[in-house]
Amino acid sequence: MKINAIVLVFALLCGLASPQDKPSRLSTTIPDAEFPRLNADGSVSFRVQADQAQKVQLLMELGQSSYDMTKGQAGYWEVTTKPLLPGFHYYAISVDGFAANDPGSRVFFAARKEVTGLEVPGPDEGFFAVKDVPHGTVRTQWYFSKATAEIRRIFVYTPPGYDQGTERYPVLYLQHGWGEDEAGWSDQGHENFILDNLIAEKKAVPMIIVNENGMTGVHFQPPPPPRAGAAPNPPRPPRAVSRFFMDERYAAVDGVISHDLIPYIDEHFRTIADRDHRALAGLSMGGAQALRIGLNHLDQFAYLAAFSPAIAITDTTKDYDGALADPAKINQQLHLLWIGIGSEDFLLEPVARSHEVLEKAGIKHVWVNTSGAHVWTVWRKYLADFAPRLFR
Amino acid sequence: MKINAIVLVFALLCGLASPQDKPSRLSTTIPDAEFPRLNADGSVSFRVQADQAQKVQLLMELGQSSYDMTKGQAGYWEVTTKPLLPGFHYYAISVDGFAANDPGSRVFFAARKEVTGLEVPGPDEGFFAVKDVPHGTVRTQWYFSKATAEIRRIFVYTPPGYDQGTERYPVLYLQHGWGEDEAGWSDQGHENFILDNLIAEKKAVPMIIVNENGMTGVHFQPPPPPRAGAAPNPPRPPRAVSRFFMDERYAAVDGVISHDLIPYIDEHFRTIADRDHRALAGLSMGGAQALRIGLNHLDQFAYLAAFSPAIAITDTTKDYDGALADPAKINQQLHLLWIGIGSEDFLLEPVARSHEVLEKAGIKHVWVNTSGAHVWTVWRKYLADFAPRLFR
Repeated sequence: MKINAIVLVFALLCGLASPQDKPSRLSTTIPDAEFPRLNADGSVSFRVQADQAQKVQLLMELGQSSYDMTKGQAGYWEVTTKPLLPGFHYYAISVDGFAANDPGSRVFFAARKEVTGLEVPGPDEGFFAVKDVPHGTVRTQWYFSKATAEIRRIFVYTPPGYDQGTERYPVLYLQHGWGEDEAGWSDQGHENFILDNLIAEKKAVPMIIVNENGMTGVHFQPPPPPRAGAAPNPPRPPRAVSRFFMDERYAAVDGVISHDLIPYIDEHFRTIADRDHRALAGLSMGGAQALRIGLNHLDQFAYLAAFSPAIAITDTTKDYDGALADPAKINQQLHLLWIGIGSEDFLLEPVARSHEVLEKAGIKHVWVNTSGAHVWTVWRKYLADFAPRLFR
Repeated sequence: MKINAIVLVFALLCGLASPQDKPSRLSTTIPDAEFPRLNADGSVSFRVQADQAQKVQLLMELGQSSYDMTKGQAGYWEVTTKPLLPGFHYYAISVDGFAANDPGSRVFFAARKEVTGLEVPGPDEGFFAVKDVPHGTVRTQWYFSKATAEIRRIFVYTPPGYDQGTERYPVLYLQHGWGEDEAGWSDQGHENFILDNLIAEKKAVPMIIVNENGMTGVHFQPPPPPRAGAAPNPPRPPRAVSRFFMDERYAAVDGVISHDLIPYIDEHFRTIADRDHRALAGLSMGGAQALRIGLNHLDQFAYLAAFSPAIAITDTTKDYDGALADPAKINQQLHLLWIGIGSEDFLLEPVARSHEVLEKAGIKHVWVNTSGAHVWTVWRKYLADFAPRLFR
């Protein structure tokens, strides 16, 4: 609440959330839908029609907080939240205990289902806004993977001018988190607008970005899906989560990316096909995968990043099959190792500890500790911090 | 029911739905979700968890038919349908009267909201299946439209080999229906797989396909959105619907496509930029727009198609501002005018009448009257019928 108030005051000072009487549209609201809508104080109002329901609630952030909705005329249930933190929020409407999507808003793939999302505007959203700058393209592409014996869908961002020119580009392989899919970095992350804007301001070199599906693995045994209306699964200790995701069970994703995807991309796009022009990054589970796959394939990658990653590095002589055991060697091999996490992130402890272990071992890395929780609002900022450091 | 049984027997004979004990996965089911799932007899079983709900129903085809679900153990509600028609179905789970998405299935944008979809496999789905053939790319692209003074999102299919070659290609502009958006033809329609397969079999010439958002128009006043849990809007007479969509209020979409989009595409893609290599087609409302915009701009288009269109041509000397008034001239100008509709389509009467009026006036056109209702299952087939006739 204190943070919300500070952000709001800051937004008002900047003139980006200037007080007004009329509520305004959210970019995530369905065209022509009246609700959800943003109020001048940064709160959001919701309204759904459910005349036969006994109890209707708004569940924010996959159920981390809730608001009771009030039944009004014609079977409409309404609620207005407290001022919300600017950024991207998942939410659901609980109708008699069933966590439903809000018909008024767009959905995004998260937690292994389609979930309604809400983009609350704020003072620092300019870096991912759709501006009047040259725009790249997000390509949906299909290719055959021998590792999984299937035709797989990927997303490929090509920078502005790619189709008109003949230059070759470096490539960032960028992975989503657990329960999401290869669309996450464009749908929730706006990777394309972030890069369009960085490139227009000459803050990042033009690059290709590739997104694969990281929920891949014959031995992958995730926890059971969240049941609608049921209490969330009891939280496991962050360190246990992190060790789970660092486990060798992720070999299948490694096979897809390092054996099938990279050769496909280098054959079908104008890439600079060497390790000095190839980066691998990911968020949460994808951050664990990025470090594991990257450290397994230092012949392929010279830049690695882990955003709020599910990692728990405890012993650099043993973790990652000893890839970190010789600090001088790894410092020479990696042009950049980037690790970041927010202070409100449930994975903070094992990640901060990993940072300390790396530091103590003399393994060079950029350490970014920001405010924020385990959310896309933070990961967009991390991409905007990481991308300008690449391929220089 | 009779049609379902015939289709099923045919499917069994073809070995495409061979009887088996175990239910099988649907392509629209979320990875790892147990339900919805397909049974050997072509029925589909649904299960959702809603332990506090009083009444749970399955609503098929945006509420045209419904099944009561039965409460079982642990708050799970279940139902198994009758054998379903192969093809694409929209559905919802009504929880105490609130039409919710099924957390077990993917969603699609329809009727101005995100709606769960169901792909029931059938004997004639091969033409849009993901096969081991060269695959084109679906590009998400952003461009500035002067007509609406905004940066707009479009989808552009480029055929296999586009990136590797230097040839120029003809272009099909292909529009969705009312309440959908520019993603419809790739998400629900599978335009890319349909063209990949036709091109691989040399049944269609390689072409570019462009999808814009047809729900555009400063004067556009659609009926109010369907309210969750409420009865559908009372049906309007098909002829009135069709006249509404043929109305001049669609000038805004015309401005976007003919003034802004075509020059953008011709500048940014390797097109053959003349009327002989440009087609315009659409479904339902998009079919009305295709004929209206196409007949307004015969300098730009030589091929037009209307799939299950919202049209009611009554007088060729007056409709479309007289563009059809001189049959000899229009027959010479249009290389192809394609009109198709299913016998179970609610718009059949005005469209069949339009066909008769054109026929009587001596205006050449391909008239395709198939089985099927106002559904994507039909429109995919129409694209597969229409595309091979283009640019020959």
